[in-house]
Amino acid sequence: MEIKKAVVLVSGGLDSATVLAMASKQGFACHCLAFDYGQRHRSELDAGQRVSDEFGASAHKLVKLDLQAIGGSALTDDSIAVPEGNGVGEPSSEAPSPKDPSSNIPVTYVPARNTVFLSIALGWAEVLGATDIFIGVNAVDYSGYPDCRPEYIAAFENMANLATRASVEGQPFHIHTPLISMTKAEIIKQGVDLGVDYSLTVSCYQASSGGLACGRCDSCQIRQQGFAEAQIPDPTRYK
Amino acid sequence: MEIKKAVVLVSGGLDSATVLAMASKQGFACHCLAFDYGQRHRSELDAGQRVSDEFGASAHKLVKLDLQAIGGSALTDDSIAVPEGNGVGEPSSEAPSPKDPSSNIPVTYVPARNTVFLSIALGWAEVLGATDIFIGVNAVDYSGYPDCRPEYIAAFENMANLATRASVEGQPFHIHTPLISMTKAEIIKQGVDLGVDYSLTVSCYQASSGGLACGRCDSCQIRQQGFAEAQIPDPTRYK
Repeated sequence: MEIKKAVVLVSGGLDSATVLAMASKQGFACHCLAFDYGQRHRSELDAGQRVSDEFGASAHKLVKLDLQAIGGSALTDDSIAVPEGNGVGEPSSEAPSPKDPSSNIPVTYVPARNTVFLSIALGWAEVLGATDIFIGVNAVDYSGYPDCRPEYIAAFENMANLATRASVEGQPFHIHTPLISMTKAEIIKQGVDLGVDYSLTVSCYQASSGGLACGRCDSCQIRQQGFAEAQIPDPTRYK
Repeated sequence: MEIKKAVVLVSGGLDSATVLAMASKQGFACHCLAFDYGQRHRSELDAGQRVSDEFGASAHKLVKLDLQAIGGSALTDDSIAVPEGNGVGEPSSEAPSPKDPSSNIPVTYVPARNTVFLSIALGWAEVLGATDIFIGVNAVDYSGYPDCRPEYIAAFENMANLATRASVEGQPFHIHTPLISMTKAEIIKQGVDLGVDYSLTVSCYQASSGGLACGRCDSCQIRQQGFAEAQIPDPTRYK
């Protein structure tokens, strides 16, 4: 029997490592896709490769994509500070003023990032003959990111099925978001059950080149809280 | 009165030059976006810059994106020949066999290309505070490309309005496709009326580094036929 291929977005963080473990467990031949998009936290790229190796992924592809060219996020634009504590802040002067200050979208939101990543995953899936794409979006901890919501994912899936050969050849794509309604603690418990070694992963927005975490940024705080709530020792390597 | 900004996808070809002329005529401050995606016909990048200059675009941004990494198209994969005459051919060995040989999708189709390009345009539009995106897709001459159809564009627009701050802040995006149901001859007549100098544009899939066209590939043939039907002298510079 031919093993079904899937494209799995692997960032090197905690969530995508868990998703890869889940996709592997479901028996997919996982083709991992990572992006060098000008992010500050480049050590996550090394982490992504380690995680793919750990789970015996069929492939690990790194695509270069210059999202710094469009700017607009603390993660790609050096003129915007990474917040420590509450991630909601002021956008850069290049970005428009928010119409509604209560919109609660963090400055670490990268404009259209998940859409761009899923689009390239879609292209690769089409080349591979795969119809399953896994992404570790989460609507609980990151509720401020519009492109992490179930209604967004459903709209992407619908669009994908009109964008591609699939629409002509009757092979619909499915965007799997197994973490979408899990808390960080639930994700961690699930990952530990599946054998994920979270010391390999890097979540910090301003990790050192060796992957040591700051312990202070939003992402670090959410991660720390997750381990605490899961009552699992935090294996993160801090600065 | 503030001039409304738009992001215009400018490839350097005939269609996108016409779209830029139309968006300029409508009074938009045009922010042109081009992609260096590993295409064979790189002289179109120079053509894109010339076209943006000609129309006094507010900006011309070139984003690097390695679509060669995923392969699967004659335009990005050296192992697939660019067809001359009929664009429907066999995919490379890396690509899956088509389920339906009559699906009629040309080998020059780049998997998910318009989705990827529109996604990055969406991100830039969000950063600029623009809600209008122009793309020169055409459902008449290129009916074999799934991502050139009106139902695809509508699905992308719907997805875009869930993907972004716009969805939270009530500023819906509009994807403009002014060419979608025009013939090539109608596009050319419209462009000439708006002052487009088509000698600046490059449509050829295998143009020389100086932008000289082969005159034989699908894209050249469609272009030649367009000028003939429009009864307008063809200013294309051939090899």
